[in-house]
Amino acid sequence: MGATLKVYATGLDTLLDILCGCLILTMQAGFALLEVGSVKVANVHAILLNNVMDVCVGTVGYFLFGYAVAFGPTTNGYMGTFHFALSYLQSDYDLTWVFFQYSFAATACAIVSGAMVGRTSYHGYLIYSFLITGFVYPTVVHWAWSGEGWLNSDMYGLSFQDFSGSGVVHMCGGTAALMGALVLGRRKVAKDVEEHAISESSPALVTLGFFILMVGFLAFNSSSQGAISHPGDAGAMARSAVNTSLACASGGLATILFERLVHKRINDYYVLCIVVNGCLGGTVAVCASANVINTYGALFIGSTGAIIHCLWSISLHKYTSIEDPVDATAVHLAPGIWGVFLVPFLDRKTGIFYCGSAGQYNAWRQLGVNVAGIVAIIAYTALTTFTIFTILDKAKLLRSHQEKLDHAEALRLHEEELHQQQGHGFFHDVSHGH
Amino acid sequence: MGATLKVYATGLDTLLDILCGCLILTMQAGFALLEVGSVKVANVHAILLNNVMDVCVGTVGYFLFGYAVAFGPTTNGYMGTFHFALSYLQSDYDLTWVFFQYSFAATACAIVSGAMVGRTSYHGYLIYSFLITGFVYPTVVHWAWSGEGWLNSDMYGLSFQDFSGSGVVHMCGGTAALMGALVLGRRKVAKDVEEHAISESSPALVTLGFFILMVGFLAFNSSSQGAISHPGDAGAMARSAVNTSLACASGGLATILFERLVHKRINDYYVLCIVVNGCLGGTVAVCASANVINTYGALFIGSTGAIIHCLWSISLHKYTSIEDPVDATAVHLAPGIWGVFLVPFLDRKTGIFYCGSAGQYNAWRQLGVNVAGIVAIIAYTALTTFTIFTILDKAKLLRSHQEKLDHAEALRLHEEELHQQQGHGFFHDVSHGH
Amino acid sequence: MGATLKVYATGLDTLLDILCGCLILTMQAGFALLEVGSVKVANVHAILLNNVMDVCVGTVGYFLFGYAVAFGPTTNGYMGTFHFALSYLQSDYDLTWVFFQYSFAATACAIVSGAMVGRTSYHGYLIYSFLITGFVYPTVVHWAWSGEGWLNSDMYGLSFQDFSGSGVVHMCGGTAALMGALVLGRRKVAKDVEEHAISESSPALVTLGFFILMVGFLAFNSSSQGAISHPGDAGAMARSAVNTSLACASGGLATILFERLVHKRINDYYVLCIVVNGCLGGTVAVCASANVINTYGALFIGSTGAIIHCLWSISLHKYTSIEDPVDATAVHLAPGIWGVFLVPFLDRKTGIFYCGSAGQYNAWRQLGVNVAGIVAIIAYTALTTFTIFTILDKAKLLRSHQEKLDHAEALRLHEEELHQQQGHGFFHDVSHGH
Repeated sequence: MGATLKVYATGLDTLLDILCGCLILTMQAGFALLEVGSVKVANVHAILLNNVMDVCVGTVGYFLFGYAVAFGPTTNGYMGTFHFALSYLQSDYDLTWVFFQYSFAATACAIVSGAMVGRTSYHGYLIYSFLITGFVYPTVVHWAWSGEGWLNSDMYGLSFQDFSGSGVVHMCGGTAALMGALVLGRRKVAKDVEEHAISESSPALVTLGFFILMVGFLAFNSSSQGAISHPGDAGAMARSAVNTSLACASGGLATILFERLVHKRINDYYVLCIVVNGCLGGTVAVCASANVINTYGALFIGSTGAIIHCLWSISLHKYTSIEDPVDATAVHLAPGIWGVFLVPFLDRKTGIFYCGSAGQYNAWRQLGVNVAGIVAIIAYTALTTFTIFTILDKAKLLRSHQEKLDHAEALRLHEEELHQQQGHGFFHDVSHGH
Repeated sequence: MGATLKVYATGLDTLLDILCGCLILTMQAGFALLEVGSVKVANVHAILLNNVMDVCVGTVGYFLFGYAVAFGPTTNGYMGTFHFALSYLQSDYDLTWVFFQYSFAATACAIVSGAMVGRTSYHGYLIYSFLITGFVYPTVVHWAWSGEGWLNSDMYGLSFQDFSGSGVVHMCGGTAALMGALVLGRRKVAKDVEEHAISESSPALVTLGFFILMVGFLAFNSSSQGAISHPGDAGAMARSAVNTSLACASGGLATILFERLVHKRINDYYVLCIVVNGCLGGTVAVCASANVINTYGALFIGSTGAIIHCLWSISLHKYTSIEDPVDATAVHLAPGIWGVFLVPFLDRKTGIFYCGSAGQYNAWRQLGVNVAGIVAIIAYTALTTFTIFTILDKAKLLRSHQEKLDHAEALRLHEEELHQQQGHGFFHDVSHGH
Repeated sequence: MGATLKVYATGLDTLLDILCGCLILTMQAGFALLEVGSVKVANVHAILLNNVMDVCVGTVGYFLFGYAVAFGPTTNGYMGTFHFALSYLQSDYDLTWVFFQYSFAATACAIVSGAMVGRTSYHGYLIYSFLITGFVYPTVVHWAWSGEGWLNSDMYGLSFQDFSGSGVVHMCGGTAALMGALVLGRRKVAKDVEEHAISESSPALVTLGFFILMVGFLAFNSSSQGAISHPGDAGAMARSAVNTSLACASGGLATILFERLVHKRINDYYVLCIVVNGCLGGTVAVCASANVINTYGALFIGSTGAIIHCLWSISLHKYTSIEDPVDATAVHLAPGIWGVFLVPFLDRKTGIFYCGSAGQYNAWRQLGVNVAGIVAIIAYTALTTFTIFTILDKAKLLRSHQEKLDHAEALRLHEEELHQQQGHGFFHDVSHGH
């Protein structure tokens, strides 16, 4: 009887992890469609090919190295160094966890491509995808989710609270995206051709991409408990699903209010894109706390996460020389930080706003741990990925052929050709449509 | 041991409800793509934005009010009035049911937008979405599915038979759609520009939308048992899945036969759209009885449901002044009524055609209850939504800017501009392609 | 207690089979989108309508006849002849298996359409779809997967090893596709118009189609154990998921290396299409062995399967008069054969490379059985489908109206019209883009 029960528990957890892993992998299609909605038709083949290759390289990278780094026996809490190429696993059943975590890694890696969409060379793309899924992201996972990492284990006395990856997945992916955009720098292309960048089918593909990501996020967040066979698992799954929906919805509503009241945009396509990104920003922010907050907490986190996304998007374009055509950093990095920061306040049992005077010490200590986690993850990811992108750039492997053309030259050519020909291979930036 | 078993039962039901809830939410993308396939390119941004906002508002509406109205402790069998904002639930596990039912509510709400696609203003759209997901639809759910409603509970001695919502979801959504179209009235636009309305990518998006809806419906109907941990649950789930596939398929075949034999259409795009809608019409009709009919019953319900959809679509356009660009009422309302009506005949155990002489009394009584349900749901939904739409229209909140332009004026302008410019913001009506 | 446990086992297996069946059915959308990416815009309505009708006819064909042929009590190990129209099943729960197997049959049938995309008439399409899902494919399933077939049962002492259908699904579907293409013959249309065949939205739809198929394949392969409630099921599911991802990824990487090193293509759209097909080729090859190979085995099978797909695609076009616009035979038939052939070598326990000297006899005997299966499945499918297609062609039911026009005439007309008009209803062949 006991053996049968164990088989059923295994079956339950496997169903959860494999089926949700599959749904999470559909997010690859969502990311690809969102990117396509923001680029020139002429460039679209290369971008889509990159998206497909991204998955290929990331898969090989994660299975050969990433899993071992993330979940192998720890080396001083910093990274794992065993089970390379999935070797020496105890049983086939361990592969359930491997596959599930692989779908998370693929998501983190897909975030990066957004900020550099269409500007990277084929080879540069493959190399950084491999390094990020094989080493950079898995290290962060080891810290926070392996049970043996310095940031979240009994060994080191810290307990970083990030249920489904506002920090581990989105801050890490978003920081890498930011470093990529920083190294590439802003393109110097006149803006008056942007309207031509939008093909007729783009808005439908953007919306489809959004709905795919919305459902993918629901699977992502609700499965983050990782199991369904223990007491409390089902409740955590259900609460995460409900809170994710609430945060996504309130993110969209906050964004449209912000746009209408503060920003007064009139371009329909721009509004569609920013609302969709606002929904996603709200969802990213709620990841860290989806299993522990109540209805009002989800509404608050979702709406503020979306506003922060709007402010980041506007500021990045106005005050910096960084370009992020699909707002990857605005959607993933900024709300990711915000989400991790808010958990110690809004946890409906132990949070600063809820725990009463007896729990204040622990709650503020939790805030300290989460802030330490934010700093550590961003610093580590920024350092490693900035190094990777800089080396690739120096080795002339990062930029695509078109990107390598002198921008001033591109501009000169562009002005000459403008009246003869529509569209010329440069990008559309959704953050300043008119 | 008993506690462990209970945890497993909870795990099983949660997996069913949350995963199917996710799949059901993909139907939002399906509805959006079907709508996009039937409108002018110039209008598409606004429509897609409305689809996204619909989900946002509906989500907030359902979690704040809808669930409490649908499943809160009853007030005289009419509606629930507790658990607003998901408060005072016994445990996190109750949220499983909340999320699952939320995916149904989102579907019902999405139906409404089809009949008014592109003609409503932004604010009007948000208000009626909120009211329908927050109050109108949940009331119907309370009657039929809460276990305490007047239409289906021991308390009142009635047992409305509607397994997965031919009545509760589709008649309700379809009636609301009809009221919306009725209040808006027919647009007075010349038809010779319609061909321009179809963008090159539309047929692929329509087909993709259909397949998304087909799979969504399979998840919808097979999960309607709501649980998988009791004896009989698995069988009901399997029978529903098979019957849904059969009804969908026979709906498509009946539609194409009808078109070829009776209607003799030659426009390929029109045939694609009506076949796809015929499949969906068959699926809608089978919802009420998917768990209790046999193979032949499914083929009969699916094919007749699809024919009724065709006849409704043609009649609506020919004999009324109501306009329904995506045939939302033809797909959801008419086959919905038909499906609820047929259950008492075709239930393979207790139906009029199967139960033998001993069961006739109960079977005919069941027919009475189902007809009462049809009348009550339609009357209630029509009354409430007609009121909502009329008030919104009087308050100048319902119609979009373009819709508000005098139609005659639009027509005049249109005729002037026709030879200079392709495409000008009015709609394509698939029900009279040529 | 025992009864409760049985209900839970039933629940677990039902969840697996129905949910994965739903995910597998999304592959219909994937196939449709891949086909649309390779055809003329003018032809797209008819092709999409065919894809929808394919599902309708296939569904009815499988439920009325196919299931009985595949899983009815055997007649001499050749085919089943009971349970027509799903009659006389023991309980509703048996329908779980029916639905699950139906999703496989729909996949096999969808493969066929690819090789004849847009060239078949409406009626011919419906007839062969019905025959293939109703009889041809189910017979092969009966041989290999019913537990009573001559190719895999204790009765006949053979045990064909094909976990999730490299042979049963893909070789069968691919052979039928090849026969269809053979009967249709090569179209004689000039190639210089091909560029016009690609609409702006095609690459995005192709990529979306690929991701849908990738996820569909993950569900397909990981659910092929058919159950999750017995010891070992969960492990088989997990191993299949991981190996499928690895084979897909290594297939894509091998294809791009092959293209860059050997083939030196420069057309971006062509590269996207062949990489996507390479990924799918790798996935097809791994189906047969996904549950029994290790990481390196998956990488080897995936990459070699993809290379074989490339070589087949090139050879078919260069050396034969067969036309296969979406490379359906290159993706499904060739890697399918390769996959079935490799199992007896790479099984990590009993394979020729792993089993040590004691197991060599059994391993080589297994190779004999698998080769016999390859020969039998191809011979049977080729014979039956060639007969079907030839009869349909003689009866003037196979070819579409356009296809029936004399090719020389078409060519003459084409040359005249080329300078006046873009696009004229013939197909784009991705296998020789430039």
